[in-house]
Formats: sequence, C-alpha cells, structure tokens
Amino acid sequence: MDYIVAPSILSADFTRLGEQIREVAAAGARYIHIDVMDGTFVPNISFGMPVIQSIRHCTGAVFDVHMMVQEPGRHIEAMKKAGADVLTVHVEACTHLDRVVNQIKEAGLKAGVALNPATPIQALDCILDQLDMVLIMTVNPGFGGQKFIPYTLDKVRALRSVMESRGIQADIQVDGGVSGANVPALMDAGANIFVGGSSIYGHEPAARVKEFIQIFEEYRK
Amino acid sequence: MDYIVAPSILSADFTRLGEQIREVAAAGARYIHIDVMDGTFVPNISFGMPVIQSIRHCTGAVFDVHMMVQEPGRHIEAMKKAGADVLTVHVEACTHLDRVVNQIKEAGLKAGVALNPATPIQALDCILDQLDMVLIMTVNPGFGGQKFIPYTLDKVRALRSVMESRGIQADIQVDGGVSGANVPALMDAGANIFVGGSSIYGHEPAARVKEFIQIFEEYRK
Amino acid sequence: MDYIVAPSILSADFTRLGEQIREVAAAGARYIHIDVMDGTFVPNISFGMPVIQSIRHCTGAVFDVHMMVQEPGRHIEAMKKAGADVLTVHVEACTHLDRVVNQIKEAGLKAGVALNPATPIQALDCILDQLDMVLIMTVNPGFGGQKFIPYTLDKVRALRSVMESRGIQADIQVDGGVSGANVPALMDAGANIFVGGSSIYGHEPAARVKEFIQIFEEYRK
Amino acid sequence: MDYIVAPSILSADFTRLGEQIREVAAAGARYIHIDVMDGTFVPNISFGMPVIQSIRHCTGAVFDVHMMVQEPGRHIEAMKKAGADVLTVHVEACTHLDRVVNQIKEAGLKAGVALNPATPIQALDCILDQLDMVLIMTVNPGFGGQKFIPYTLDKVRALRSVMESRGIQADIQVDGGVSGANVPALMDAGANIFVGGSSIYGHEPAARVKEFIQIFEEYRK
Amino acid sequence: MDYIVAPSILSADFTRLGEQIREVAAAGARYIHIDVMDGTFVPNISFGMPVIQSIRHCTGAVFDVHMMVQEPGRHIEAMKKAGADVLTVHVEACTHLDRVVNQIKEAGLKAGVALNPATPIQALDCILDQLDMVLIMTVNPGFGGQKFIPYTLDKVRALRSVMESRGIQADIQVDGGVSGANVPALMDAGANIFVGGSSIYGHEPAARVKEFIQIFEEYRK
Amino acid sequence: MDYIVAPSILSADFTRLGEQIREVAAAGARYIHIDVMDGTFVPNISFGMPVIQSIRHCTGAVFDVHMMVQEPGRHIEAMKKAGADVLTVHVEACTHLDRVVNQIKEAGLKAGVALNPATPIQALDCILDQLDMVLIMTVNPGFGGQKFIPYTLDKVRALRSVMESRGIQADIQVDGGVSGANVPALMDAGANIFVGGSSIYGHEPAARVKEFIQIFEEYRK
Repeated sequence: MDYIVAPSILSADFTRLGEQIREVAAAGARYIHIDVMDGTFVPNISFGMPVIQSIRHCTGAVFDVHMMVQEPGRHIEAMKKAGADVLTVHVEACTHLDRVVNQIKEAGLKAGVALNPATPIQALDCILDQLDMVLIMTVNPGFGGQKFIPYTLDKVRALRSVMESRGIQADIQVDGGVSGANVPALMDAGANIFVGGSSIYGHEPAARVKEFIQIFEEYRK
Repeated sequence: MDYIVAPSILSADFTRLGEQIREVAAAGARYIHIDVMDGTFVPNISFGMPVIQSIRHCTGAVFDVHMMVQEPGRHIEAMKKAGADVLTVHVEACTHLDRVVNQIKEAGLKAGVALNPATPIQALDCILDQLDMVLIMTVNPGFGGQKFIPYTLDKVRALRSVMESRGIQADIQVDGGVSGANVPALMDAGANIFVGGSSIYGHEPAARVKEFIQIFEEYRK
Repeated sequence: MDYIVAPSILSADFTRLGEQIREVAAAGARYIHIDVMDGTFVPNISFGMPVIQSIRHCTGAVFDVHMMVQEPGRHIEAMKKAGADVLTVHVEACTHLDRVVNQIKEAGLKAGVALNPATPIQALDCILDQLDMVLIMTVNPGFGGQKFIPYTLDKVRALRSVMESRGIQADIQVDGGVSGANVPALMDAGANIFVGGSSIYGHEPAARVKEFIQIFEEYRK
Repeated sequence: MDYIVAPSILSADFTRLGEQIREVAAAGARYIHIDVMDGTFVPNISFGMPVIQSIRHCTGAVFDVHMMVQEPGRHIEAMKKAGADVLTVHVEACTHLDRVVNQIKEAGLKAGVALNPATPIQALDCILDQLDMVLIMTVNPGFGGQKFIPYTLDKVRALRSVMESRGIQADIQVDGGVSGANVPALMDAGANIFVGGSSIYGHEPAARVKEFIQIFEEYRK
Repeated sequence: MDYIVAPSILSADFTRLGEQIREVAAAGARYIHIDVMDGTFVPNISFGMPVIQSIRHCTGAVFDVHMMVQEPGRHIEAMKKAGADVLTVHVEACTHLDRVVNQIKEAGLKAGVALNPATPIQALDCILDQLDMVLIMTVNPGFGGQKFIPYTLDKVRALRSVMESRGIQADIQVDGGVSGANVPALMDAGANIFVGGSSIYGHEPAARVKEFIQIFEEYRK
Repeated sequence: MDYIVAPSILSADFTRLGEQIREVAAAGARYIHIDVMDGTFVPNISFGMPVIQSIRHCTGAVFDVHMMVQEPGRHIEAMKKAGADVLTVHVEACTHLDRVVNQIKEAGLKAGVALNPATPIQALDCILDQLDMVLIMTVNPGFGGQKFIPYTLDKVRALRSVMESRGIQADIQVDGGVSGANVPALMDAGANIFVGGSSIYGHEPAARVKEFIQIFEEYRK
C-alpha cells in the first residue's frame, strides 16, 4: 500500500503560502490538502478557487481538494480550472452522489467521498466501487486544531475490511487530529493518506513531514 | 472629503500575500479590501476568516471586509476576531438589516451596507443614518476583472445627493471595474473610497496605488 | 381614531396564562397581541397554534397574531382554527404578498402586514389599499424587552401621511419598546394600536393597561 | 432498568400550565416532556424558549426537551438558559450530528437523538456510544393525538438488542400514541421512558401518571 | 406602438398541443406565451424544457417564456437550447438581477422582468434601461383562470409614465385575467403585449385571437 | 409475477401527446410513466399537474407519476385531482417519509418510493412493508436518454431478496436506460415494472411496447 502525508494549508501562514507549500513538497509531501469551506455546509469560510489557482504554479504536488460545501456539483468545472487533481465531496451534501462522482471523473479528476464522524459507512454501499478515495473525517469538519475522535478508528477498520472483502483498492484518507501519535494505529486500521494540519504547520513543517514519512517506513518493516 | 484607494486582495498573488499587502500599504493604501465569497450568495468561494487572521499582523492598514455571503450576521464575531475593521454586508442578504448593522457596531467595527447593481438606493432609506459606509457595486459581485457598469455612476450621484440633503457624512465606496479612467467621474458623482482589483494587482501594484492617490490630489486642486 | 392597547403575551407568566390574559382584558385591553416566532425568520421560537387554541376560550378579546415566520401563507388555515382574529405577516417573509393577504381575508380574518425597522414603507405601495393594519416594528423582531428605535417614529409619520393622502383608514400598529413615555409621540405620528410587552407584563399588568388607556383619553382632549 | 413516565405539555391546558405541570410532578412524573416545533422541520409551531423559561421555576422535574426543529445546534445555549435538562435532536435535522451531540454535552445537558418512524436505527451506528437517550418516534412528529405506528415496536426491540450487544446502557424513549394499552409491549421491547400526551392530559392527568407508574411496578414483579 | 396577443399554452389542450399552437399562430398570434412553474417559486409545476423543445418546430412564432422559478439564472442555457426567444424572470426570484438580465441578452435572447402584484415598480429603477419587456402580473402567478386584480392597472400606467419620462421604449406585458373586457383600459394605461389564457383557449382559440387583434385595430383608429 | 411496461412520456412528442399515449396504450402498455421534475430536486423542469390533468381523459391506463421534486408531500392532493393513480416519491426528498407514504395511501393512491443510484436499499428497512412499489433508479434522475448504470442491477437483486425473506409482494420498478437488451437480466434480478423512455418513444412506440411484452412472455416460459 502507498502511504502519503497530505499537509493541510488551512494551518499554514497565508502571508507566504507559496513558500509554505514548497517547503512541505520539498520535504516529501506528495499531496497538498486544500480544505474548502463555504460557511453553510460548515460554519467557517476558508478559501476557494482564486486561492487555489494562484498557488497552482508553485508545486507539482497533487492538489487534494476537500469540498466542505453545499451542492459541490456546482463547482467541479471551476475547481478543475483552478488546478484540483483530487476532488472530495461529502455524502451529506449530495442528493445525487452518483452524478457528482461521475462528473468529477468525467472532468478528468480523481473522485473522493467524505463521511462526517456520525455518518455510517453503509452510506457508501452502492457507490464504493466507483471511488478513488474515501475520506473518514476524524473530527467534525469546519475548523483546524481539533482533537481526534476515538470511535472513528473503528470506522476506518470497518471500511478497509469491507473494501478488502469486495476487492476494492481505493485510498482511505483520515483528516482531523492526525499526528505521529495516532498514525500507526490508523495505518493498522487501514488508512493510507494522512492529513496533517496544525500537527505539521504548527512548528517546522518540513521536519514534521519527514516524521510522517519516517513512521510510514518503519511501519513497512 | 477623504479619498481612499482600497486594493482588493482578490486579484493578488496568494503565494506571497504578505508581501503583496505590505507593498500597497507602503505605497499609501490605507484600506485593504477583502472580498469574502461563500459560493451561495455569489457563485464563487474566495476566502474567509483563517486567511484574514493569518495576514492581520502584516499591516496596520484598515481591513475593509466585504461580505458576499448569505446571512452575514452569523459571522460578525468570527470576523472581528480575525481582524476586520470595517464590515460591509449586502442588503440583499439580510432579512434583519437593522439588527446586523447594530451587531457590527456593537462589536466595535464600522458598518457598511452594499447594494447590487440593480438594487435601488431607496432600499437604504430607513437605515442610511446608521451607516459608516455604503458600497455601490459597479459590477455584479462574484468575480474579479469585470467591466464597470455605466448606469451605476448615476446611483452614486443620486446617493450622494440624498446623503447631502439629509446631512449624512458616510463614505461611498465603489467596487468593480474601477480604474484611473473612471475615478474622476466617480469622484464627481460622490464616491470617495475606490476598490481596485486587477487594475492594481495586475501590474506593479505600488505604482498603481500611487496613481490613484495622484488622481485624488489633482482632483482636490 | 380608535386607540387600542394590545398587551403582548410574550412577556406574560406562562404558568398562569389564562389569568394573565383575563386580567388585562378586564382592565380594558381589547386586543391580545400574540407573537409567533419560528426560529428561522427570527432567531427565537416562542409559541404557535396549540397555545393559541388552548387560551382562546378564556377571553372574547381580539386575538391579534403577529407571524414572525417564514412563508406564513402555509399556516393561515391552522391559525384560523386556533382562534386568530387579525393575522399579520412580514413583507420580508412573503414572495407572493398579495396572495397571502387575500388568503387571510378569504379566511374571514383581518389582514396586517409588518415591516422590519430597515424596510422602507414604499414596499407597501401597491398593497396598502388592501390592508386592515400595518405593523411598524419599532425594534428588530425576535425578543422581548428591547429598546425603541428612534428612527421608526419617522416611518409611522410618513406612513400615516401616505395613507391620508390616499384616503386609506387602516390601523397603524407599533411593537417594540412601546411605553407610556413614547405613546404620545407615536400617537402624534399616527399610530393607533400599541403593543406593550415588558412595559405591561413586567409589573401589575392591569394598572399598566389602564395607564395606556388614560394616555389615549388625555390625548383625545 | 429505570422506568419513567414523561407527560407531554403539548396536550396540557395552556391557561394554567404551572398547575398542570405541578399536578403530574406531584403524581410521580419525574420527566416533563417539552415538544418544541418550528413549523419547518414539522408543519406545526408549538412553543419554545420563552415558555420553557417561564415554567422552569414551578417544578424540579427533569425538563426533557424534544427539538423538532431544523439545525437544532443553533438553539443549544438558549435552551440551556431556558432550563432544559435533556436535549433531544433529530438525526434527520443534523448534518453534523457528532458536533451537535457534543455541544449539548459540553453545555452540561444530557443528549438524546430522535429517529422518525421511517429512519433506520443504523443511522446511529457510529454515535450510539455517545448518547444518553434515543427517542424512537412512534408516530410522525408534528401533532398530538395520533395513533401508534405498529412497526415502530420492532425498531425499539432491534435498538435495545443492538445496545445490549454493544454494552450500551442509554435510555430508549417512545413518543406518540403511547398509553397503558401498549406500554407493556414497549417495555418488553426495551423502551424505558414513555411520553404520554393526550393519554395523560386528556382526562385527570394525575390519575393517568399513577397508572403508568403502576404498570411499571407490575412489570417489575 | 406594436400591440401583440400572446396566447398562454397553460390553458391549452395538452393532448394536441401542436395543433393548438398552430391554430392561434395562424389566427395572427405572433407570440406564444409559455408559463414555466417549478412548484417552489409558485405552488404549481407546469412544464419546462422538454415540452418547449418538443413544440419548437411547429411554429415560427416568438416563444415568450415566463420563468416562475427560483434562481432562473440556472436555466438560461437550457431554455435557449429548448427554443426560447424572450425570457422573463421575476425580480422576486433574482438576487443578482443585473447579472441574470445580461446572461439572457448574451445568450441572444430578449430579456423581460416580471413583477408580482404587490411588488412596487421602483424595484426596476436601476435596471429599466436594460430591459426589452416588463411583465406586470395582473394576478398572483401560479394558476390559470384567476380574476384580474384592479389595482394593477395603476401599476401599468405608472410604469409607462416612468418609461416615457426616461425615453424608454420597452414593451409592457400583462398576464392574468386579461380579456376583451379589460384590454382597452390596459392599452390606455400603456400595456402592449396581452397574455390570454382561459380567455383564449377556453373556447374557439382562433376566434378569440382575432378578437384581440380586432380590439387593437379599433383602438388605433 | 405481473410484468408491466411503462412508457415514459418524457421522451414523447408533445405536439401530439394524446395520440402518443393512445398508441402505446393500444399496444398493451398498462402503465403510463409520468416524470415530474421541478428544477430543484433535479436540474430539469419537465411537466406537472396541468399537463397530467389535460391528458387524463385520453386513456384508462394507470398514471404512474414519478415525483422528482422537493417535499412531494405538498403536491399529493393536486396530483390526485390531476389524475395520478400511483405516486412515487424520493426517499432523498422526504424528511417525514412515513407521513408522505400514508398521505398518498389516504388519498386513495398507490404509494411508491424511489431510490437514487447511490442510495442504499437499507434506507427502506422500516417502511418497506407499507409500500406498493419501490423504484430503483438505474440512471441519475433528471434527463432522458441516459445509459443504464450496471451496479444498480445488484440493488434490484438485493431488494427482491430482502422482500422475499420478509414476505413482501410489492412491485420493483426500474427507470433509466432500460431496453430489450437488459430487461431479461432485470427480470432475473427481480424487477417487474419497466420504464422505457427513448427506447420506446425514439422509434415506433407501439412496436417497442410489443417487444417488451414479447420479452415478458418469453421469460415466463
């Protein structure tokens, strides 16, 4: 399995975002996690297309866009133009989830679906085969710096188990309160893409990224 | 009357936003215009509280926040904490406009109200005395780089005339397609705060800011 | 002109509401003002049909129901059954105001339209002839115990002046921060139905009602 | 297991609510069930914070507030101030259920989650451990006096069975068409808190409360 | 001025719509009025794009589409493809009216704006110059067969007067309860496009169309 | 099991709808499938009550109305009056599904519930016994002429299996990309009502209907 650390720019210094992104990319981060919040699906408004477009040129890393927005299907074309590579939508925000997932794929992007902590993984039963990634929220979306919710570890484990029994290879991403302290347990449970927010950008981001990668390597042994 | 140029960071380079803001501030921009878009009131999602908070420390200039969001009353406290100085809400987005204006003022911020191009100035008849600023949109809000709508010049003139007849001193801000080419006409009409987007950040922002200020000075003679 | 005091049960003691209503009715209150709030049009949820129905039998006074609710047209039949006599809807809550006003009248009730403080009276230009009452909010709706907003006095005056010039006899009701201290000025401006909340139910309601009536009588001399 | 009868004031006489509440409390009702309806999540508007606050002082019984409202998370602080002890929200009304449940608990209240008749209990799979109570609606919420829906008995049984297999002790409340006739079957199925509306307040509430308690005692033997 | 009768297919026989349209077109109707209702902006759902597209080939008459829908801006491209020539949107349904009007015109269609009976004509003050047509609703939109609302005659007169004073040539359309009985008065007031529903399709449509045209001709003398 | 072909008029020629309906009915279609779209639940607006009412007299076939609309409970009475026999609502559009299903049945109509492709069949666990029909969408609702989604075949099979294990006899309808090519597989899986859109009305509808019936007969042997 391919293990990836995805630093979330939500916790970065926006006065020098290019530098902050280049730093984690140079340290080995292949994904840049981009938390788009609209003030309606979640209480906070973070950033969107103009910011993504502006930072696109400063790295070749995968732009992994997490849409915490109502009716994300409206924004697929704009997100593609802005430079998204992976587009993740919330099952709680999509009446026509199959349509949205297919629109993302037809736009040439990878499609992810996110689940809030309390949303059962059975919500994905029909669509699981169509996905490139499932994002298990390990905090309630909307703010950086929250504490990992312990029961979400069981969701990761249950989801990986369902995927294996159905022969599905998709990625499982975890987001919220993820740090070196819980990454090994999350890897055991079946997660393989790890979003780090304040745990990376809080202090010496490059060093933090390397620590995540070090944990991945030790785990493989 | 006090004439002010307010560079809009919507058109700035987000890889080095601190630098971009310090540059215009050093050139004489006393206001930094911050266009918050939520993807619902307008089709675009721009940026919000985490970005504002992150850039707050890099200048002492006035943070002039234009809320293109549904129910802006929900975000007043968060905007204050993030560092806003002036908070402008849309009349089209507020069921209880008097309450929202008072909540802004009670939070210690200056209160502005914005009007979409097609919204008549009569919409402000009751509340005009309570405002620090009226923002006459000179394009439809939602995107940078649009062309100035000529009929909005008459709105500025009509509004300043109403204000004068009622003895009201509030600022009139214009936003959208504003450049050196139309600033004198807008000053004649009664506007005194000028938002510049692509006309400032498109090429040599400091020079552009100085040109605005130069126009103000010539106008005063 | 007929002057009426309308005690608002929003400020009454709900453990003995029947007694509280009978007390003000016995003291001369011909209207009982009933503030229905839905938690969406306004932030508060107060009470609705089951409460109105339950208290209907305890007085023959006019039940004057102020609908601070989204899409009030949905509730007209239920309000009639519950015992409403006058039904007032907000112009800000009605896309099809003429339809709603006519539905109220076809149900055999009197129709009022309410204006939030910042809403200009021009909003009623077309419909004014059809109304039994206009409610000028003198605070922002949603809570009891607020302070009278001074500029609303001008709205009352302007509205009465428009009505007189058009030969319209409808009632003008004021609601919010109304007490003996401002009733004479409001009567001068043209209001004739006065909602009293905490100013009546705060202390000795019967005495307070009689004071309102006393002011009316003195004013007539 | 602790069996509790919770008289619903929706069916009480609102002219003398204090007396009606003291009567059932004196008869042994330890919970007072308070049905808050907003006219949007359900078609009816019942009552809210001002009523609850007003009746709070007349009993020490638990105020068990059932929020039949959209986005109940907005009202938690106001409900706490009004005097709620248990706050139950609908899974169908919450996008971020884990956040709302935690906000209720952080406010020092007990947290319940309600399910409409057609909503499967699997909706609670992730959050079940966090709850103090689950409310299985045994009628469609919105009105008093409806008939018990038979298939909901199976839901109660299935839920208690899931709880037991996971070692969860939370209460199961049933609401709608509950009376002496079906309480024993509901107890067999696993319910332990019984909301009585018209079956209690329809005729001699104190006697009805004592009958519920009598059924509990006989069942225990 | 050019006087036009616009038969509304809302009242036609949908089992033979082609025949019904060809019949009125042959009788001299240059406009076919198409009432699109979405069940949200108005309570009724009438018909939309698939019906318009299907009937487009059967006449060369102008397809005059009245959008009684929320956020009509979403449907402009689809309406153009379906065959619309004139697209009329409601001011009550558009937050960004200038944008929607411009999108209609950029799509190569003529742009109309409709006003509900209670909506003042001042709502169009800023945008009036940009319009090809104003639709004054003479009933509340949503159903066929309603009675003409008398006060709307004054709105037509006031609007034509404003247009003349500003040198604006746009059409004024009236819709609802329009028949031979009130057409002359409406022409006097300034209307020039007359929607006929049940007054045309109720009995011998071709004859009714000719009567409208006859009235126009007599009026011109 | 009773196998039925249900031609969808969404793909018919609306200039001669009566003829088109009579043609398929004469060819043996016992159901006419009527796709109501509101532009909100789905992006398209198709047709509604006035069209249904107008075509009701031209056939005695069952009017099988598929409500792709928000809050379909609002329209039940209007749909009954218009002539619906079966009314199918989406589980994704109903907060109070049990109430809506019961309102349909109390109106004397047959009740169906539809599932979008990505919606798991577990969503019906509680309500399954109450239904006359389940509609498994085999494309995303909103447009004619789409391609069958293969994974929905498994949903049909799983649903029929659940029904059989619970002794439930309800119909299973499939809608979207259904043609002679996949009908046998769908019959094997357990579907028994087949909606044909462009596969029927695209070319010689009567012949196509007969082909469906021929497939049913061969399957039975």
